[in-house]
This record gives sequence, C-alpha cells and structure tokens, in this order.
Amino acid sequence: MTGFATRLHQQIQRKRTPALIGIDPRWDWLPAEIRQQATAAGGHQSEIIARGFERFSLEILEIAAPHVAVVKPQVAFFEQHGVAGMQALQTVMRAARKLGLLVIADAKRGDIGTTAEAYAAGWLAGADPDAAAWPADALTVNPYLGGDTLEPFANLAQQRGAGLYVLVRTSNPGAAEFQDRLTEGTSMYTAVALAVARAADKYRAADEYYGSVGAVVGATWPQQLQELRALMPRVPLLVPGYGSQGGTSADAAAAFAADGLGAVVNSSRGINFAWRRPGYQEKFGEGKWREAVAESIQEMIADLAEHTAAGVLRNSGAV
Amino acid sequence: MTGFATRLHQQIQRKRTPALIGIDPRWDWLPAEIRQQATAAGGHQSEIIARGFERFSLEILEIAAPHVAVVKPQVAFFEQHGVAGMQALQTVMRAARKLGLLVIADAKRGDIGTTAEAYAAGWLAGADPDAAAWPADALTVNPYLGGDTLEPFANLAQQRGAGLYVLVRTSNPGAAEFQDRLTEGTSMYTAVALAVARAADKYRAADEYYGSVGAVVGATWPQQLQELRALMPRVPLLVPGYGSQGGTSADAAAAFAADGLGAVVNSSRGINFAWRRPGYQEKFGEGKWREAVAESIQEMIADLAEHTAAGVLRNSGAV
Repeated sequence: MTGFATRLHQQIQRKRTPALIGIDPRWDWLPAEIRQQATAAGGHQSEIIARGFERFSLEILEIAAPHVAVVKPQVAFFEQHGVAGMQALQTVMRAARKLGLLVIADAKRGDIGTTAEAYAAGWLAGADPDAAAWPADALTVNPYLGGDTLEPFANLAQQRGAGLYVLVRTSNPGAAEFQDRLTEGTSMYTAVALAVARAADKYRAADEYYGSVGAVVGATWPQQLQELRALMPRVPLLVPGYGSQGGTSADAAAAFAADGLGAVVNSSRGINFAWRRPGYQEKFGEGKWREAVAESIQEMIADLAEHTAAGVLRNSGAV
Repeated sequence: MTGFATRLHQQIQRKRTPALIGIDPRWDWLPAEIRQQATAAGGHQSEIIARGFERFSLEILEIAAPHVAVVKPQVAFFEQHGVAGMQALQTVMRAARKLGLLVIADAKRGDIGTTAEAYAAGWLAGADPDAAAWPADALTVNPYLGGDTLEPFANLAQQRGAGLYVLVRTSNPGAAEFQDRLTEGTSMYTAVALAVARAADKYRAADEYYGSVGAVVGATWPQQLQELRALMPRVPLLVPGYGSQGGTSADAAAAFAADGLGAVVNSSRGINFAWRRPGYQEKFGEGKWREAVAESIQEMIADLAEHTAAGVLRNSGAV
C-alpha cells in the first residue's frame, strides 16, 4: 500500500507545483450562465443549486487537472444544500479522482471512539476510490477532543494509504484565542503539534519520510508556520490562507523543505471566482470566467515557484 | 421567535424528563429482522444499510416520542454510508420533528467565516423545520478554531430559534489531553467555557433566562461538570457519557438547576441496543428488542428523576 504522502509527492513532482485548488461553490457568485442552465432544468431549490455546484466544480476540475496535483472541496458548501448537495459532492470527488487528482476533503471532522471510526470509514478512501462513500485521499480533522480521538483516523489512514490533516494553527483572525494560549510553558498549538508529530511517527511506514498524519497551519501566521515546520519536520502541511485571506507565497515559504516538498498551499476563492478579482475583472469579466480561472492558476503556480522552495520542482526532470 | 431553550424546556416540562435519546445506528448491531428486511429489498450495500438505519431509527423514534422531549442523531453513522445514509438521516430528522420531538444534530461542525455560515445555514433549522436541509433544532459545534468561528452559528441560531452546544469538556478518556491543560492561570476548558458564556450573553433574548448558546460537558467528569455549571449558570448543557460510557445519574446531577431544567442527559447505545445489555438480554433477547428499548427509556427516566433535580418535573402540574 503506497502511503498518502508518497502518492501526493509523486503527483506534485509530476505537475511541478504544490498548488492546492479549493472547490468552494457559492450560488450567488456562480457565473450567470451556470445559474441559468441549472435553473432551467427545474426541480426544488436545493436540486437547482446542487446542479449548478456540480457543473461549476467539474469545470474547475477540468481546468485545473492538467496543472495541479490536488484539490480540496469544502464540504460545508455542499452539505448546506442537503441530499442533492451531497450527491453533487460525491460526483465531483469521483470526477477528480478519475482525472488523476488527489482529493483532500475539507470537512474538519472529529469525534470520539467508534464515532470517529465512522467518520474515518466514510471519508478516508485513500488509494482505492471505491473504499469509502466520499472518496477522499485525505481529510481535515479537528483535535480538540484529544489525541485519542485522532487514532481511529490515523489507523485507518495508514491501512488505506490515506492521509489526515489535523488543525493546528488555523488561518482565521480569531485563531489565537484558544490556539495561542500559553499552556504549561508552551502554546496550545505547540501541544497539539507535538501530539500530531507523535501520531505521525507512530503511523509512518518504514519506507516513508513523510507519513499519513499531516497538519493544517495558516499562511496568515508566517512566524507560527516557521516554528511549527521546525517542530514537525516530517509532517506534511496543508497551508490555507493564501490569496483572498491575505497570506502571500513568501508567508508560506517556511512550510517547504529544500526539495520543494512537504507542503501544499491552498487557494479557493481567488481561483474559483478569479474573474471577480480586481485586474481580472477588467481583463476577463464574467464572460471569460474559465480563462480567468486558468490564468489565476498559472499565476499562483508561478508565484509559489518564485518565492518558495517549490521553485526547484519547475526545473526537475520528473514528468 | 421563541428561542431554542424556551422550546426545549417547554417540551421537557411537558414530558417531565430531561432524558435525551441518541440515535446511533450500527449495521452489525441491528436486530436481525431489520437487517433481513433491508437486505431483501435489494440495491447497493450503502442503500441496504441506509434502509436498515432508517427503519430502525424510525422505530426508536416511535417508541421514544411519547416519553421524551428530544433526540440526538449521531451524524457520523449516517454520513459513513454516503448519499443514501444522508437521505436516511434527513428522513429520520423530519420524522422526529413531525412527532413533536426536538432534534439535536450531533455533527460537531466548526469552520471559519463564510464556511461556518454554510454549516449553520445547513443545520440550524430552528423553529421552522423547512428552514434548513437538515432540520435540526440545535447542533453540536467544535470551538478549537476560535470564538469568532462560533459567531455565525450563534447569530443564525438566534434568528431561527435554534441552538448550539459547544464542546467544552467531552466525555472521552483522552479529553484531558488538550482540554485540561493549564493555560494562563486556568484550564483550557475554562477558557472555552468563558467564551461560551460570553456568546450566550450576547445572543440571549431579553425574555430568556437560558439562551441559544449551550455547552457539551461529559457526565464522566462530575467534578468538572459541577465547576462548569457554576461558571455558566445560564448556558443550557448537553451531558453525554451517561450509561455505556460509565457516567451515572448522580454524576450528571450537577448539571441541573433546582427546578430540574438547564440540562439534557444523553444515552445512545444503552437505549438503541438495550436488548444486548446484561439483564436485558436474558429478559427480552433480540426477539423483544422494542420492549427492551421501551423499558430502558423508562429506566433512564426514573433514574434521572431519582438522583437529580429533574425529579421535581415528575410532580409538576404541566402536561
């Protein structure tokens, strides 16, 4: 069973970028043509919205797939729209896998004992997309309930070649409130990071440098990112907060090892709705939203290559 | 708009018990007759399982509805089985509302900004079951991302007469690892409790004693429960850990105000699969699983009435 980090890094080396594209559909922001088509086909409101989300997300996948290794659907936006929304999510995740993309389900699940096992079984498909109802390669997980609640996720992840990304230091403005509290000589996020590093060591295969247990650390906090990378050198990082949330490629740079591996940097809104961005709006407008999405992906890839160690991937021989 | 706590307490006074019945279906534990019927109807494995879950959950609801005010479906068990599982969850939640039961969705969601808004919009139906795809009266929420991430939930909860229960001190063995760490002169769970109390004050209607923002505190930690009740006197509590997890009614007693209100105590496995319990197994066996469920509910109601302030509800005039 090839581990998650190994599969991820193979794809990152092939595509020569650690850019992670979020899939965050919002009805009000969808291109008018997509909303019109979805509405014309009729049905209940949730079915119309789900149809629009599916079509839009599939188009984003088609545009992104030749250029990036991995995508991250935000489960909340699909879940909001009920059964039809969840059906669309499953279709989108399956399509991503068929396109050769890895899928990180951003669901931030977490619970105790057998309940955690149920979430893990439902989401951590890993190497075989048919192994779970929601065919993710990896899942984001919330650690508040305790290190024992990460075990069912880490255990199944190792069995299935899947991964998890545990929330350590999130990208939102209020992240510091609990995560930065000084606890017993260190910060709360440091305590969580050490637990994550221990779980990563426990569940790492003998032939892997990076294992199946990763961490989420926001690009909006470059100092903490540097500190946490040093604390968890063999933990794959998922770095949100780039782009719309204000984080830059320079802010994210500390996440990477010298070979350009070890991290993925996410952009969602800035890519999905690129034609609404200043500059892009004038150049493309809604009529050329696909072109705007394509250019924003290229811009992100170039930006990460220029300001982080991921630049070495560009010149590598792997294809 | 009648607030969540007011609606909850009206029902608790009518049913004269704060017993909360969890809905936690697991395929391997379902009565053989339910598994056989579900299998005979055919389809994919997830459809068969979802059909069994739906049938079993609906029977539990029918048995419980005359006796208790509120039920708590565990979302993970449904989510594990994909779109069919989520369809079953929606059917079960709608049926519970039609039976006059309040529904707490145990989904432990939590995310930042507009993503938190999407989860809130999807789950917090509140007073009008048609207001959200998943028609919950209240939702469990994880606080790790920060107090700012609770705001979208609390805000919408107040608008819709819905509630949230924020994880403060959970019932699992490893809960202490992060939640009990001493931070800046107090414990982490105390810091979270104070943030919850502040949010509760902010979003409480002028005519309510208890507001829409509640907290989860495990019965397995009676000392912390006592401390937290004192710290959050006007916060409705959801107390898990009773029964199978080892918590007793005496352990849960500190959650209640003198009038028997202010808390609900949950039992899931001990009720759903009562006929598998020692004593019950001999008396009922699988053939009389419905009778076992009914008796276990009566036993729980009597136990809470005997060992907690909820006993005063039994003698109240309200019907």
